[in-house]
Parts: sequence; C-alpha cells; structure tokens
Amino acid sequence: MQHEYTARAEQIMRRIQELAAISEDADGVTRTFGTPAFLEGRALVQSWFEAAGLPTRVDGIGNLRARLESPNRDAKTFVLASHIDTVVNAGKFDGPLGVLMGLDLLENLLAQKAELPFHIELIAFSDEEGVRFHTTYLGSQVVTGAFDHALLGRCDEAGISLDQALEAMGGNASQLSLDAIPAAEWLGYFELHIEQGPVLWERNVPVALVTAIAGQRRVELTFTGMAGHAGTVPMAMRQDALCAAAEFVLIAEQFAQVHGRGLVATVGKLAISHAASNVIPGAVTCSLDLRSPDEQQLAQAYDFLHSHAEALALQRNVALEWKLVQQTAPVACDGHLNTLLARAIADAGYETISLVSGAGHDAVPVSFVAPATMLFIRCYKGISHNPLEDVEMPDLAAAVEVAERFLNELKIKNEELKMG
Amino acid sequence: MQHEYTARAEQIMRRIQELAAISEDADGVTRTFGTPAFLEGRALVQSWFEAAGLPTRVDGIGNLRARLESPNRDAKTFVLASHIDTVVNAGKFDGPLGVLMGLDLLENLLAQKAELPFHIELIAFSDEEGVRFHTTYLGSQVVTGAFDHALLGRCDEAGISLDQALEAMGGNASQLSLDAIPAAEWLGYFELHIEQGPVLWERNVPVALVTAIAGQRRVELTFTGMAGHAGTVPMAMRQDALCAAAEFVLIAEQFAQVHGRGLVATVGKLAISHAASNVIPGAVTCSLDLRSPDEQQLAQAYDFLHSHAEALALQRNVALEWKLVQQTAPVACDGHLNTLLARAIADAGYETISLVSGAGHDAVPVSFVAPATMLFIRCYKGISHNPLEDVEMPDLAAAVEVAERFLNELKIKNEELKMG
Repeated sequence: MQHEYTARAEQIMRRIQELAAISEDADGVTRTFGTPAFLEGRALVQSWFEAAGLPTRVDGIGNLRARLESPNRDAKTFVLASHIDTVVNAGKFDGPLGVLMGLDLLENLLAQKAELPFHIELIAFSDEEGVRFHTTYLGSQVVTGAFDHALLGRCDEAGISLDQALEAMGGNASQLSLDAIPAAEWLGYFELHIEQGPVLWERNVPVALVTAIAGQRRVELTFTGMAGHAGTVPMAMRQDALCAAAEFVLIAEQFAQVHGRGLVATVGKLAISHAASNVIPGAVTCSLDLRSPDEQQLAQAYDFLHSHAEALALQRNVALEWKLVQQTAPVACDGHLNTLLARAIADAGYETISLVSGAGHDAVPVSFVAPATMLFIRCYKGISHNPLEDVEMPDLAAAVEVAERFLNELKIKNEELKMG
Repeated sequence: MQHEYTARAEQIMRRIQELAAISEDADGVTRTFGTPAFLEGRALVQSWFEAAGLPTRVDGIGNLRARLESPNRDAKTFVLASHIDTVVNAGKFDGPLGVLMGLDLLENLLAQKAELPFHIELIAFSDEEGVRFHTTYLGSQVVTGAFDHALLGRCDEAGISLDQALEAMGGNASQLSLDAIPAAEWLGYFELHIEQGPVLWERNVPVALVTAIAGQRRVELTFTGMAGHAGTVPMAMRQDALCAAAEFVLIAEQFAQVHGRGLVATVGKLAISHAASNVIPGAVTCSLDLRSPDEQQLAQAYDFLHSHAEALALQRNVALEWKLVQQTAPVACDGHLNTLLARAIADAGYETISLVSGAGHDAVPVSFVAPATMLFIRCYKGISHNPLEDVEMPDLAAAVEVAERFLNELKIKNEELKMG
C-alpha cells in the first residue's frame, strides 16, 4: 500500500518536473497568466487530463476544467483545484502540485470505475498569483461567479487590457458569467498546496490541515520629524523620524508575539528621505502588513497599532500619516470537511497539525459560496516563490494517501447522507 | 557704541551678500575648492583685504592670507580665520562670516593705528568642507604643517588630481611645507562660526564660547537574518533583520540620552535588502554616527553599543557585521583663551553659554600646534548647509563686540606678560 502511494507520488513528481521545464525564462520557473509559456504549460496539463480519459474544456478566463460525473445527475459538485500560473522566478510546486495530485486522484477513481455520490470537477486555475494584472484570484472568481467585469479594462505593464489578453489567448470575456458553478451546485472544495512557511519543516511532519486563511491589512506609515546635523543637535532637541519608526517596528513585533493565535505583523519596507550618515532622519516611510485568521483580532491589532503609532508620534513630536492601503477579511475553512480531513490524517498515521494560512489562496473566494478546505504539505525550509522551493517524495506520498482517504471519507459520508 | 557695532555688522553683512552671489549654480551658494566660482569669490575677498591696506598673499594650497605686524618682530602670531569654500547648495554664512569678521577687526585695528604685542594673521582657508576631494581641512593642515603630501594624488569625481587642481588654480604643491606657520611662532587661534545647531536659537542668546570639538566614530552595521513570507512565518520562528536594527536604533538613542554631556548618537542611514511589504526583512545595513567631546566617553559609548549590538543579534539569531569606518579624536579648546572669551561675553552683557561643537572645524588641526578657541553665533533655527541658513543683525553686532573685547583682553594679557 505504501509502495503504491510512493509510485503515485513519483508520477506526480515527474509531471511537476516536466511542467516546470516550460518557462518564460531559462533560470527559474515563470509562467504568468496568458503568456506563451503559460499556454504551453496548460496544453501539457490538458494532454495529461485527456490521456487519463477525462473530458476537458478551457473556460472563458483560461481555466482548464475536467469533470468526473456521478451517475446521479442531480448530485452536487466537489471541486479539486489549484493554479498553474506562477510568480516571476517561482518554484515548481506552488500551484501545479495541487492540480497534478487532483489528476492522480481522478486517475485512480477512473481505474477503480468507482460510482461517485457527487460529481468531481478538477480545475487548473489560470490566474491565482495576479502578477500580470495586479489582481487576485481571477480564475476562481470566475468559477465562483464573483468575477468583477470592470477588471476587463485593466492593463498589464505592456498596456494590454485583460479583455485583449483573453482574446489573444482564446478566452471569452463575454461568456465569463456562464463559467460559474452555481452556488447551489457546490458540494465543497479541496486544495493541496505547499505550506510556503517553515512550521511543518521545523516540526518534521508531512502534512497539516488548514483551519483558516488569514485576513490582511496593509498600512503605509510616514513619520515626519526634523532633519538636522548629527553632530550639532542635542539629543533632547531632536525629532528623529527613524527613532519613531524603530519604536513602531518593535511595538508591532511585540504585539504580535504576545497575542499569538496566528496574528503576524511585519514591517517589510522602511525608507529614510534624503538619508545620510551625518543627518538626523527627517522623514521615514514604512509599511505594516498585519494578518490574522480572526477578524476581531485583526481589527484590534490594527486599532492598537494605529493608536500606539499616534501616541509615540505625539510623544516624540513628529507627525504621523497613517494610510490603510489594502484590507481582506479572514475566511474560515469548513469545519465538517476538516473533521473528515483530520480523520484521514490520523488514519494515515500522521500527527494532526492545524495551521492557519498566512498566504492567500483560491479557497478564499470559494469559501464565500461553498465549504472549502486545504491540505498543506511540508516544503523545504518553508521556502517558496523561489527556485529553491522543494517537496520531498515521502511527504508527497503521505499527501496522496491523506487526500485519497479524505475523498473516501467524503464519499462514505455522502452515501450515508443519501441513504439517511 | 552699540550703534558702531551695528554699523560694522551691516558692513559685514553686505560683504556676505556680495560674496554669496558668486556661485557655481544659480539657486543656492556653491563654491567648492578650486572651481571658477571659488577663485572669483577669493579674488573678491582679496580685494577687500587689500582695500583695507593689508598686504595679502595666496599660499600654495590656495589660502588667502594677510598679516598685521607687531612692531616687535619677535612677537608670536595670533591667527583669525575661517574658510571660504562651501558645500553644495550651501548657505551664505558657514565660513565667510568668520573671515569677514576677522577683516572687520583688522580694519578697526588699522584705523586705531594700534601697536600690537603680537602679529595677527587673517586667513581665508581654501578647503574646509572637503567636498571635492573627500578630504578634511586641506587649508588649515597646510598652515599647521600637518598636510599629508600623499593627498596630492587623490582625484575628484572628474578624475583631476589635487596636484593638477592646484596647478590649474595657480597653487604650488611643491612649496606647501613652506606655507606652514612654525609651531613655535603660534600665539593662538580664534574663529567665529555659526553654531549650525539649535541651542542658541532655542535659548535666545546671540553667542557662545566653544569648549571642545567632538570626536567622532562612524560605524557601518549589517544585520543578517532570514527573509521570509510575511504571512506564513510565525513570529516565534522569524529572524527579522529590521527588528534587530530597530532595537539597535533605540538602544543608541537611549544611551546618548541618558549619558548626555555632549554625547550624541545618530542612525542616519538604514536600508533593507530586497525590501517588500510582504517580505520579512532578511538583511539590513545601517550607519551609526557617535560624537562626544570626551574621548573616554566616546570609547565607552562605542564599546557599549558594539557589545549590545552583538548581544541583541545573538538573542535574535541574526548575524552582525560591525565595521568602524571613521574615527577622529575630540579636541579641547584652550582654557586660557576661553577665560578671556568668557570675560568678553560677560563684559558685553550676554549670558555666558559654553557649547561643544558637534561639527568639525579648522580649529581641530590647529589645536595640535597652538591654543585654539571659537565663538559660535546663533543661526536661524540651527539650520546650516542649506540656503535657509541665516544670521540676524543684532547677533552679528553682538559677535563683533565680543570678538573685539576678546582681542583687547588678549592684547592686555600679552602686554602684561611682556612687562611682567
């Protein structure tokens, strides 16, 4: 049995490698939405879907979709999916792993000639990373019916609109609303994805279930004090913008450390205006990235940090400009699906670890229309969005076993429901 | 009497304005060493020296020098000086004020046909700011005999060596050692300069005597942690280089605040490698500028901050690279000259404030061969190295009175010495 999962993992890995060889550039993996490399990669995945005997189609936004139908024509649809677009200079696993493991699961169901109590739709989303048009979840928003048609006018850096890009890649902007799975037809959503963080690596466990996807608030702060000569202005007379920013950096760090429960706070950018080693910083602009699975905690952290930034600015006699630049609400993964997923992990013999996803995923838009969950797989040192991204074969075999057990649990539960 | 000082201050101010109109650029004041604007400005100052009846010469490094001789040929030489080069986009007062007040003092001594117990040499140093060749005190180092001839090979940004620049401006590199005033001939040195800091402005006092010029240590620090995704790495697993740097910024600030006595600490530059709002900073490089009038305090502050930087790096599991990039020792102004200067300030009816100069001045090299002191004059809001640099007329009149009283004290003391 273990050998079978290893063989299936090896097959998935071969496909991962073959797909990764298709890239816009030679060094890493780059297949941003709608580029020739993207289309070539999608065609390869489509050829695998079809070789498995799955009828496929490409929808209006460029998602590759295949269905395994239940004999019960009124059954609901369970979606297995991930994305096949990448960031620039990406790794091989972020996205394709979930699609190709979904294919593996369907290949095995086909081989078993299993009669399913629900339809399964396998989707390779065309745009999750949003690199080209600075968007989020174009592919899954079309499938969930949440696509905002105003985005069609948005242009990439070359001045090509999304509308034009869709036409060039054989998509169909006018039919996008027809590509949605109606809310009533959804049974649920499951996605395997690399963790993109170091927790499983550090804890030496192959997989984890995801309980929530963090909400995010992004702030741009500017502290404005008074520039001055580093030698001639006494400490007591300074209005040092960098000292104010430094105090803020540490308050944000400490607040997140103390409050825990998935809250993270990061100052990733910090720039001093007209910086010189012998000049007291007069103005500093920095970013704040706050994430939490709990909207209330996120709001509290935001308010706390905002008021403390204002207080320290006042105390230091510097001005503060505080600008909220982005805001997304946290979403919870489905409790019922996670019960099944936890059972699958335990039955496969692994420790059941629950993680919050700090990164966004297609499960976010899906969760507004259907129960959704995710399985995270350990990745090398937590490294992602980097050619060093890696997944080990035993972990992949473990993920295949857990996913298959999960689908079986889901099947049993839905057969029970039907009979009940 | 007060009216007389005001009239003299107005004359100095007219010359300041006229000299400031000579600039390499149209907006501010820029007369860096050896440029056509510099030479034109020096020629204007020389014409004023000569109109006053002073014999002048330009020495090998381009200093403009004039002497008022004592009838006693064996008398020592007291130097009144400041510089006439500027930084880029400078103000009008930094440098020229000291030269033109020196001229005013000599004009009045000439008018009085006073017999001096010492020679006075009035010098307009050619290079104090060091902008063109990234040097310090070229002019005064020649006069004190400390000029390093290796500097002649140093090139400016256009690839012109100091040697070539001297030739082009009519200087004489081969004679520089002959331009020194031998150590045995120095009686002392006095320079009027704008404070370039806000203390006199805040305290509403026109002048202050300078007790010391701060020593300086400049450090470049790099904290190297681990970059990571701002959403997926839990707080407890981070090695955030910016948090480490922020902690250092505040330790440096607090140490200087607590220890006082002229100690100042400034982090003026701070840069995150590959900064992005959603990436935990992996490496941060920052500067530290430490200044103190007390060498022991400077050394203690340096050691304390170095060991605390190492300790916090260790505690945060980040690497620290600590590089001392510049070091100058503090120099004390002469106690005997300052006693005379304090008396002059008190006699003129002003509060006697003692300041440490956090900025370097030509008094630094001079102090190695002769007793030196300085008088600071209040400048508008402490602003300097900026076209907004300004000095108010009543303050300038006060400075003229104090300087004249100081010279009288010096005369009386030296006549007493001679008779004693």
